[in-house]
Amino acid sequence: MLYQKLILSSKIGLPKLMSLNIRAMSVKSTFLQIDELGEPHKVLKKCETQLDSPKDNEILVKMLAAPINPAVINIIQGKYGESPSLPFIPGNEAVAEVLKCGQNVKNVQIGDRIIPIGGHVGTWRTHAIFTGQDVLKVPDNVDNVNAATITVNPATAFRMLRDFVDLKPGDTVIQNGANSAVGQAVIQLCKVWNLQSVNVVRNRPNIDELKAQLKSLGATEVLTEEEIRTTALFKSKQIPSPKLGFNCVGGKSATNVMRHLASKGILVTYGAMSREPLTIPNSALIFKDISFRGFWVSKWSKEHTLEERQQMYNELFELMASGKFAPPVHRLIPLDEYKEAMIELADVKGMIGEKILFDFTK
Amino acid sequence: MLYQKLILSSKIGLPKLMSLNIRAMSVKSTFLQIDELGEPHKVLKKCETQLDSPKDNEILVKMLAAPINPAVINIIQGKYGESPSLPFIPGNEAVAEVLKCGQNVKNVQIGDRIIPIGGHVGTWRTHAIFTGQDVLKVPDNVDNVNAATITVNPATAFRMLRDFVDLKPGDTVIQNGANSAVGQAVIQLCKVWNLQSVNVVRNRPNIDELKAQLKSLGATEVLTEEEIRTTALFKSKQIPSPKLGFNCVGGKSATNVMRHLASKGILVTYGAMSREPLTIPNSALIFKDISFRGFWVSKWSKEHTLEERQQMYNELFELMASGKFAPPVHRLIPLDEYKEAMIELADVKGMIGEKILFDFTK
Repeated sequence: MLYQKLILSSKIGLPKLMSLNIRAMSVKSTFLQIDELGEPHKVLKKCETQLDSPKDNEILVKMLAAPINPAVINIIQGKYGESPSLPFIPGNEAVAEVLKCGQNVKNVQIGDRIIPIGGHVGTWRTHAIFTGQDVLKVPDNVDNVNAATITVNPATAFRMLRDFVDLKPGDTVIQNGANSAVGQAVIQLCKVWNLQSVNVVRNRPNIDELKAQLKSLGATEVLTEEEIRTTALFKSKQIPSPKLGFNCVGGKSATNVMRHLASKGILVTYGAMSREPLTIPNSALIFKDISFRGFWVSKWSKEHTLEERQQMYNELFELMASGKFAPPVHRLIPLDEYKEAMIELADVKGMIGEKILFDFTK
Repeated sequence: MLYQKLILSSKIGLPKLMSLNIRAMSVKSTFLQIDELGEPHKVLKKCETQLDSPKDNEILVKMLAAPINPAVINIIQGKYGESPSLPFIPGNEAVAEVLKCGQNVKNVQIGDRIIPIGGHVGTWRTHAIFTGQDVLKVPDNVDNVNAATITVNPATAFRMLRDFVDLKPGDTVIQNGANSAVGQAVIQLCKVWNLQSVNVVRNRPNIDELKAQLKSLGATEVLTEEEIRTTALFKSKQIPSPKLGFNCVGGKSATNVMRHLASKGILVTYGAMSREPLTIPNSALIFKDISFRGFWVSKWSKEHTLEERQQMYNELFELMASGKFAPPVHRLIPLDEYKEAMIELADVKGMIGEKILFDFTK
């Protein structure tokens, strides 16, 4: 294989220094893998492999950070909309540094930070070989956590705000689970795009602290589930009734959000943290003309071109670089602590309120 | 008033024979009215009034037939999306014959059959004065029952088939309550437009007779609620999975219909005969990208121009005139039997399987 690489290189002249370096390079990658579906702390195991040098359009990367997303936990458990082919290396997003490029790679170079955007690559590993076209360069002033978590949650918030209702400055958006990573992204994008956000969270001991935190991100209003049921916010015309609502909880919480939507409003469901279905009164559909839709960022990504995705990520990168989009509340852990993290996340069913990321730089 | 009419007429010349006739004409109208909301057989009362001759843009009509629609029963009961201002003459559609026209009326003439299409006029009466512009002439070869029932049920079927999914010949539509008046209209329009219809009805003693009846209208398949739950019709690819579903029942029946929708399918709710809400699994929204919408023909009519409505009714009239659209299964009763009819309809909660119309021609 290495011999072939040299031959190929020689076709366009003498073997270059880069190619010689490739020959010398043999990188060990440590990764998490499952051979069967099940509870993550039981079925995940740590493995090692030697990586070949990148060929042609490939790049060799060193992972910097990769989040543990609830959807990935569900995939490992076999409780998701799509089943993985086994064995399976989990992890659906990351930020990585380019160590080496195949000779045909033009869009990135050694030292660049990149995110994978070409579908599932398995990011819970220290090093990987990616296809060069399927990565996007991260601007210098975007931090690692923001970059590593851009393709799932900020992308979900971005698309849900853009693709369902033609919102005008001053319009209102309402959401439950507002302290989730998507929720935080929604709040920040609403602020940037001059939309008002009404944010619903579950009551908790430190509720004032949480409200202050979400307001500091740009939330117009933050209310508990109890408060949203009885609020006069919309009746008093203090704020226009929302044309768009986001639901990641289901059950009664979804009903609470739905009740406040303006006539012809749309409720978009992107999560189901309560595991309870939506109950929709017929009058909401027939007389109030409310629509109920769903959103799944994986599906959106598959159905849209690389260019469309790049355009969105670059727009988000720009906001991140200019300080208008903070990373989600988070905690960094080394890869070795994966079992403890999985047990912790299983306990709270993903509703941890902070994003846990593997940090590969330590 | 009559004197003023003569003066007005004289402005454009000598009083004409027509104006003299108007002077002679004084028509007694018998009508049903409510002064309070409640059970129809209790609150409806029969009244009489003398009608003035039609002025300017008005026309005097003799009602021929007017249906008792479930929505009107609900309005009388105060259980509808909009409340009437009292006193209130019920009845939301009819066919009538023009007896006399005001001098500015151009679109219809004496002897024409018309339907009112300008909003609520109250059709449960023997005679009425309408605004000339707000009526549409009925072609000669459309029968009275078809004409009297075109604006609610066939219009609902027409819009639901046209406005939600861009259906192509061969595509499938699924619906519950398929023997309802809308259901029958859906079946017939699907046949005309080369769409396949899968029709769900409740099981009943004469189920084979009902299936044969709906198939004679053009139904591709007719299944009971039990049969639709276990059918292999779509899995076997015998018929493509439906892109569009119609729900007038709610509850479990809606779930049965929803489960068979193709990915990205739309379920449109236009009725709630079971009075049970829809229960929507989050996976249907997120992973299967099913949308849940509502349709209310009254709202559609208010939000669209007279021209748009005329265009639809004329298209439907053409189908009716050419024998491609049969009237709903029905029974004609004299106005005097209104109490018995209301008691009968209250008992079955509107699920009578045949349309009852007041017949004013006897």
